[in-house]
Amino acid sequence: MLFKRFPSLLRNQSFGRRIVCTVFETTPERCLTSGPLPGEPNKPSVLTEIPGPTSTRLLKELSDVQQTGSVQLFADYAKSIGNYLVDVDGNTLLDVYMQISSMPLGYNHPAMLGALADPANQIILANRPALGVFPGKDWPNKLRDVLLKKGVAPAGLTQITTMMCGSCSNENAFKNIFLWYAAKKRHGAPFTKEEMESCMINQSPGSPRYSIMSFKGAFHGRTLGSLSTTHSKYIHKIDVPAFDWPIASFPEYKYPLEQNTRENQQEDQRCLAEVEDLIAKYDTQKKIPVAGIIIEPIQSEGGDNHASPEFFQQLQRIAKKHGIALLIDEVQTGGGPTGKMWCHEHFNLDSPPEVVTFSKKMQIGGYYHLPELKPKQAYQVFNTWMGDPGKLLLLEVVLDVIKRDNLLENASRVGDYTLKQLISMENEFSNQISATRGRGTFIAFSCSSAKLRDEIVKKLHSKGIQAGGCGSVSIRLRPALTFTEYHTDIFLDALRSILKG
Amino acid sequence: MLFKRFPSLLRNQSFGRRIVCTVFETTPERCLTSGPLPGEPNKPSVLTEIPGPTSTRLLKELSDVQQTGSVQLFADYAKSIGNYLVDVDGNTLLDVYMQISSMPLGYNHPAMLGALADPANQIILANRPALGVFPGKDWPNKLRDVLLKKGVAPAGLTQITTMMCGSCSNENAFKNIFLWYAAKKRHGAPFTKEEMESCMINQSPGSPRYSIMSFKGAFHGRTLGSLSTTHSKYIHKIDVPAFDWPIASFPEYKYPLEQNTRENQQEDQRCLAEVEDLIAKYDTQKKIPVAGIIIEPIQSEGGDNHASPEFFQQLQRIAKKHGIALLIDEVQTGGGPTGKMWCHEHFNLDSPPEVVTFSKKMQIGGYYHLPELKPKQAYQVFNTWMGDPGKLLLLEVVLDVIKRDNLLENASRVGDYTLKQLISMENEFSNQISATRGRGTFIAFSCSSAKLRDEIVKKLHSKGIQAGGCGSVSIRLRPALTFTEYHTDIFLDALRSILKG
Repeated sequence: MLFKRFPSLLRNQSFGRRIVCTVFETTPERCLTSGPLPGEPNKPSVLTEIPGPTSTRLLKELSDVQQTGSVQLFADYAKSIGNYLVDVDGNTLLDVYMQISSMPLGYNHPAMLGALADPANQIILANRPALGVFPGKDWPNKLRDVLLKKGVAPAGLTQITTMMCGSCSNENAFKNIFLWYAAKKRHGAPFTKEEMESCMINQSPGSPRYSIMSFKGAFHGRTLGSLSTTHSKYIHKIDVPAFDWPIASFPEYKYPLEQNTRENQQEDQRCLAEVEDLIAKYDTQKKIPVAGIIIEPIQSEGGDNHASPEFFQQLQRIAKKHGIALLIDEVQTGGGPTGKMWCHEHFNLDSPPEVVTFSKKMQIGGYYHLPELKPKQAYQVFNTWMGDPGKLLLLEVVLDVIKRDNLLENASRVGDYTLKQLISMENEFSNQISATRGRGTFIAFSCSSAKLRDEIVKKLHSKGIQAGGCGSVSIRLRPALTFTEYHTDIFLDALRSILKG
Repeated sequence: MLFKRFPSLLRNQSFGRRIVCTVFETTPERCLTSGPLPGEPNKPSVLTEIPGPTSTRLLKELSDVQQTGSVQLFADYAKSIGNYLVDVDGNTLLDVYMQISSMPLGYNHPAMLGALADPANQIILANRPALGVFPGKDWPNKLRDVLLKKGVAPAGLTQITTMMCGSCSNENAFKNIFLWYAAKKRHGAPFTKEEMESCMINQSPGSPRYSIMSFKGAFHGRTLGSLSTTHSKYIHKIDVPAFDWPIASFPEYKYPLEQNTRENQQEDQRCLAEVEDLIAKYDTQKKIPVAGIIIEPIQSEGGDNHASPEFFQQLQRIAKKHGIALLIDEVQTGGGPTGKMWCHEHFNLDSPPEVVTFSKKMQIGGYYHLPELKPKQAYQVFNTWMGDPGKLLLLEVVLDVIKRDNLLENASRVGDYTLKQLISMENEFSNQISATRGRGTFIAFSCSSAKLRDEIVKKLHSKGIQAGGCGSVSIRLRPALTFTEYHTDIFLDALRSILKG
């Protein structure tokens, strides 16, 4: 069965095993069953407390040279394989968090290792160009055949700007939106002398008082522009200056959704009315007009907060009505985990959003946009590297594997199964967990308190599951696209035994 | 002679040639002379106009999907070698610009290709971790043995934060400075409820009105925080909102320096007085106190503007007096081109600056800082990737080659030679070029007009030299660290014939 689902894994398994699978004994026969992927162990195994003694020693070393309060453990990436993270103390953890959702195919995927073993790709990695000035001969082809390929690029978004990470993708998308907005206001007139001079000293009219609207609970990055649109946790923001930009309420739904339809619809309307009010207030009162609205299709870091397709449709209509660009931030949702390449494809929008940003599972950062947002002049959206061909070559392999192994379909199917099982568990343990929600394997559930959430995450560790929290009381699943029902069952067994205990 | 200077190049040449040197005929004998490096051609060769027909066709393709006004040509990186960039039309250009100063060892350096051919390194590239949560087992060692090694880290700066690029290094360094500054003001008190709540909606006191002082002509990046400290060209800034932060004058020296000592000293004092005035004005009048001062040791993008060691010493004393952090931005100057690992080592500062940022030639971005700037809490300076071990492994090789081949000494010696020759040429053509200045091979000269500058850069292309401008009238040299007198002579011959013509 897995043989059919993951032909490439099977095809390449001998290659993958040669390099990395030294710790696990696996036979080709077992790979044909609905079980672990080739090279993976049968199940997690925990030998020490986590962090174990070796992690603890390394943490002490690292703490001498940097702030390490966020470090959970030290990993042995050469021994990690597929859905399993192996740490330096020999613990083998089923990883449902996957490096904050950034590894699409799990550890040491043979196709990625194969690409990196290719000398032609090594030349690309050794010669990182300034892409905005001296792109390599294959660059236009690569953009077309990888990022802009049908089924990869969001429908209708024909323009691409490559970047390095999620924050800089959003920052540059903001700039792109400001340029577009200013050009509209200028009606084709050239820059004035006053604009050219005042921008050099950060003053208007050259540095205009425009804003990007964001939502409470949002996470869009941590550089000063993107941080001004991030509102998930105070520790990300405190003591750092921010722009005075408008922040609207994001819907807070009551679960289960099917029992709260009317209230949740009202919640949509409340939030959309706030959007309208803020647009007016920042335009007429504050004189900081809204040029763009940034929103996650699912607020991730902020607690896996979902909003209805109707909410997004109406939000887009409001933006259009006011001549404001809609930026959908798919840094965490993009690249397949929701069962579609882009989460916003679930929303049946009237037309493509103006901008879609990406990073994480896409390996390379950047943004897609509508042709009318293409900057009119060179060097306005620019930096030394403008992305990295060494990351695009990895993305190419990832997309090939997603297609060949039907990993979008896999994410849908496994996600449906996981969601169903979790909801049934929620009914069983309704005093502890609730509000199971998700699309594809992009799933979360809430715990009855922050304390319980933290305890569950810790106990999951002791049972060999690497999970992650989000928001204040939620646990989020962010497995690789190669996660199957087999892995779901291991996770659920561990969770059930914790909830029972 | 070169054999002694570049033992590793010679040692590895057969490896390097096997992969890439298909277009050039070279013999081991010739590599022993003071001539081209192994695998390099004797001299540039230009077959077409630049951009040639193939570049022009590719440019048209790329323009369909993005703004391409900054693209000069399309390169064939597999054929490029050492100091020579080969384009898609078969033109072989001596590259004195090196991807906006970002390639330390030139094209297809055998040591870099060797590192990428190592399967252990391929595993690192295939498993990019979230370094802030799950660092690999070698990470503490790698930081210590590569970035923090004696002779690599600026003396006294024992703390390291890795990032991805120059802009995000500066942005995160700003945040780090704001946290340090706020903690000092707080005198150990915990965050207040008001601070925790107000920062979530971008309002003070949680989002404080603190500023970073920068200098006219500076370039520190293009994301919204770093762009607020960039003031080199209006096209980078116009139509993009900026923070109201103070901007002081950077010294504008008269050249030749030895004939204008007194005036230039007065210029230093004028600028330093402005720094003091702005600190006072932003503190008492504007109520946006200065938490940090960011400065390049040589303003690069802004025109290769130099300031004296005394200026930097006094600037540091002013910063210390006011409890303000000094951030030296070594994104373009760091990694060896000035003949020292860090350009600010030329300044004999009283004590280490609080922060030094880097990227470009260092392959990985990030910043060094003093222990007292270490954030007190986790997740304040954080992002998904926090750098990239796949770039650190390249830096490790680069630093090994710099040491083994004495490339800092090489940059000093070749730079001195180049500077001397250029000054002599400046005397010969004083109506066209002037103000030759530099440290190591980090050299620039001014042209009598912007028009002449652009013409010279274009004519250099036609003579097989890839050069770059900076400021409004300057041409900058940013060669690889492997650039020798042999290459200087080729550049100077081309320049002389243009100035004569």
